[in-house]
Amino acid sequence: MKSFLDLDDLSADRLEAVLARAGELERRPLSDALRGRIVALLFMNPSLRTLASMQAGVAQLGGTSFVIAPGQGSWQLETRDGVVMDGDAAEHVREAIPVLAQYADALAVRCFARGKELGEDLADGVIRAMAALSPVPFVNLESAASHPCQVLADWKTLDDLEVPRHGGRFVLSWVWHPRPLPYAVPASALAMAARRGMQVTVLRPEGYGLPESVMARARAWAARSGGSVTESSDREAAMTGAHVVYAKSWAAPAFYGRPAEEAPVRAGLREWCVSEAWYRSAAPGARFMHCLPVRRNVKVTDEVLDGPRSVVVRQAGNRLHAQKALLLEMLAGEGA
Amino acid sequence: MKSFLDLDDLSADRLEAVLARAGELERRPLSDALRGRIVALLFMNPSLRTLASMQAGVAQLGGTSFVIAPGQGSWQLETRDGVVMDGDAAEHVREAIPVLAQYADALAVRCFARGKELGEDLADGVIRAMAALSPVPFVNLESAASHPCQVLADWKTLDDLEVPRHGGRFVLSWVWHPRPLPYAVPASALAMAARRGMQVTVLRPEGYGLPESVMARARAWAARSGGSVTESSDREAAMTGAHVVYAKSWAAPAFYGRPAEEAPVRAGLREWCVSEAWYRSAAPGARFMHCLPVRRNVKVTDEVLDGPRSVVVRQAGNRLHAQKALLLEMLAGEGA
Amino acid sequence: MKSFLDLDDLSADRLEAVLARAGELERRPLSDALRGRIVALLFMNPSLRTLASMQAGVAQLGGTSFVIAPGQGSWQLETRDGVVMDGDAAEHVREAIPVLAQYADALAVRCFARGKELGEDLADGVIRAMAALSPVPFVNLESAASHPCQVLADWKTLDDLEVPRHGGRFVLSWVWHPRPLPYAVPASALAMAARRGMQVTVLRPEGYGLPESVMARARAWAARSGGSVTESSDREAAMTGAHVVYAKSWAAPAFYGRPAEEAPVRAGLREWCVSEAWYRSAAPGARFMHCLPVRRNVKVTDEVLDGPRSVVVRQAGNRLHAQKALLLEMLAGEGA
Repeated sequence: MKSFLDLDDLSADRLEAVLARAGELERRPLSDALRGRIVALLFMNPSLRTLASMQAGVAQLGGTSFVIAPGQGSWQLETRDGVVMDGDAAEHVREAIPVLAQYADALAVRCFARGKELGEDLADGVIRAMAALSPVPFVNLESAASHPCQVLADWKTLDDLEVPRHGGRFVLSWVWHPRPLPYAVPASALAMAARRGMQVTVLRPEGYGLPESVMARARAWAARSGGSVTESSDREAAMTGAHVVYAKSWAAPAFYGRPAEEAPVRAGLREWCVSEAWYRSAAPGARFMHCLPVRRNVKVTDEVLDGPRSVVVRQAGNRLHAQKALLLEMLAGEGA
Repeated sequence: MKSFLDLDDLSADRLEAVLARAGELERRPLSDALRGRIVALLFMNPSLRTLASMQAGVAQLGGTSFVIAPGQGSWQLETRDGVVMDGDAAEHVREAIPVLAQYADALAVRCFARGKELGEDLADGVIRAMAALSPVPFVNLESAASHPCQVLADWKTLDDLEVPRHGGRFVLSWVWHPRPLPYAVPASALAMAARRGMQVTVLRPEGYGLPESVMARARAWAARSGGSVTESSDREAAMTGAHVVYAKSWAAPAFYGRPAEEAPVRAGLREWCVSEAWYRSAAPGARFMHCLPVRRNVKVTDEVLDGPRSVVVRQAGNRLHAQKALLLEMLAGEGA
Repeated sequence: MKSFLDLDDLSADRLEAVLARAGELERRPLSDALRGRIVALLFMNPSLRTLASMQAGVAQLGGTSFVIAPGQGSWQLETRDGVVMDGDAAEHVREAIPVLAQYADALAVRCFARGKELGEDLADGVIRAMAALSPVPFVNLESAASHPCQVLADWKTLDDLEVPRHGGRFVLSWVWHPRPLPYAVPASALAMAARRGMQVTVLRPEGYGLPESVMARARAWAARSGGSVTESSDREAAMTGAHVVYAKSWAAPAFYGRPAEEAPVRAGLREWCVSEAWYRSAAPGARFMHCLPVRRNVKVTDEVLDGPRSVVVRQAGNRLHAQKALLLEMLAGEGA
């Protein structure tokens, strides 16, 4: 595996191997497997967990990382081909990626959705173009349409908590947020849960159904895994018997790239904030998951987040273990 | 000692041990005591010395550090409890601190005063709440009301210079600055000098007396140490026999959080800039101290800063040694 | 060599030794020569290559680096002497440099031209003052008038490509850019090519001749090396037999510091964008060089940059090897 752009890039076999190794690394964190190796971390957008866990993980494996943040101490980067670069961006990824690849044994890149055109962002062309430009292993740290390190950690979290792969009920719920957000996390979480064989419901208000290509991919995984994928705007029905609520906000596809037009619709949906009341019909001990950062009392109440249902900190902890296992898979071979 | 939030957190015994170890580390800087250990550095405000000396110190001890700077490549963090987070901050410290603690063996955090309400800032609730959220050792890199790493280094500097603990005359002087500044450094320096047993005078214009709780704590230390704490607006008297002038600017308590109202009062105080003339009645070879950064010819003249009185660079050098000793105290135990 | 401010700081002897070691480091990148050593990287301006290659290089030599970026997580720094610091800058380099030098075994600093007064920037006083303040080895990572790490790498690149030292034809060509840029790179590249013994032509529109002191230095090198330096605005003539076009944009000296006045002149020069057509009369296989970042289809066409002439990525790769060799020269002695 030269590039890890999406969870789909891991075969069933390698996915299980990475999860197993993540568990071993959780128990014995330190090694010298990456001694003398350098991982370049290119962040075109903000980060806390990813930035911290990648640096910590590389260090615990005996390697070194460095951070480049275009626009914050580095040049803004152009990602489109063929343009006349007389605007803000002083450098093109066609130079930046091959150049950085000469300084590192792997590149890991965060590059969020532009948020202008739905089809462009769903195609995830920018991160794919950057990966294609890299002669060294390339890790997606969240792109326009995918956040595979997050959902690799989420899969491990579900395993750790013994949420059943088959028969487990997973509710991916839209929640309110002041601004329309991209599809990277919901699309990745949905595909992950479907691939894991779970019974998945996408709970969302009318008008907030995920794009058809996102739904189709999840249904294809469910068909292979023996899981299922449905959609609903009926909270009570969707929550019945749920083992997990995975909360996330996202843009209304019909208004993509036109936030001012979406604003009045969105304004009426502030009650989409996960609270204890949501769990009335859920399975006993049902969990709350979120990729973080999360806005308290906007997406979820303090009560849920500070209570026993919440596993958000554990999810974040698994970022470290999962990413270390992934780096070993990509950089150090199976025997490392 | 699980948290180092204030110099008070070090008992007399441990303080002497840390100072002694700092001296040893100054002579022999390199070790492997922190091999495989990671220190997360969370900076919610700018830094030069602290940022550099923490990174250098951890490296010289064989460990690794990483930097997270919310709002500059990371999310802005909310610190208040119970709020509806629909503003700028995308993440709460209630998630950020426990998450980062999973990636590191210690957290070190800078979080300046909000500068809105005097009582809130003096209570130093934000850094205390963050420390309480951390399951791993926690170091204050300057909070609303305290800068303990600075004054630990300052204590060592005074020892290095053989300024007497008892009988040494320490003048903490207010100086002009274009904006009102918080009490973290003056409060910490005052308590440090009083605890060290010195005869301390707070020299300041009328209306710029330090808050009563700050003065009371210093007087309590002086009572225990055999030192003294007085206040004066009479420069000539305060400077008589002084061994050290420690310059710092701070807000007028009566106008705290209302800089526009303080501005006309402050405007008349530009002559509070330490110059050679201040030292006429001082002890021979009296020193000039400042925590840096310092505005030249605003807080102190070029002549003083570039002359033999100034020990500001040495103070900064001791940050490195003192912080390394502190990290060993917190992370590696006495035998390290 | 205590400071590396300009390629001139390397004697002929040491220059060849550094180039030879750079070649060795390209073949065997890892060593422990800088174990326990710390390099402080101070960036007062943006960077990608320099920031990344310095961090990677120090790590590959077994050392540690840290980054300080004033104005982005650190205080803005004043560089002028004698000023009353009541503006934006909270700290002076007179403190910052000696302080950082206590935390590191070497300082490497980027500080671009102010762009106000031609004479001031050409004198390169700011970086020279900073170097003079440093008690530890000091490396210029691009100053107002010089970018020696770049041209050290460029020299290696020319050697790698077997472009003849004597008889090689080097065209330094002005190209269009939306804004006037400083002379650091063109001045350094010009002096480098002249010192290398090449036949150098500065190709530029009328009004864009390089400042006389820059030309004079290059002519002096040419006189010593057996090379030559000429100027031309005749593209066809300048390109005849050229082995290399080194593209760079720079300000019109007559309008230095007054970009609004230069703008109408500059606006008419957009056709100064290197294309395949430029190479009609060049030597077979003539190369395209640029220090990067480069604006595509502004300074050079996609066709040239993506074609076989372009060696820009290789130039950037040589930054790593050249800087590592330089650090060993400065920090580890000849025997390292």
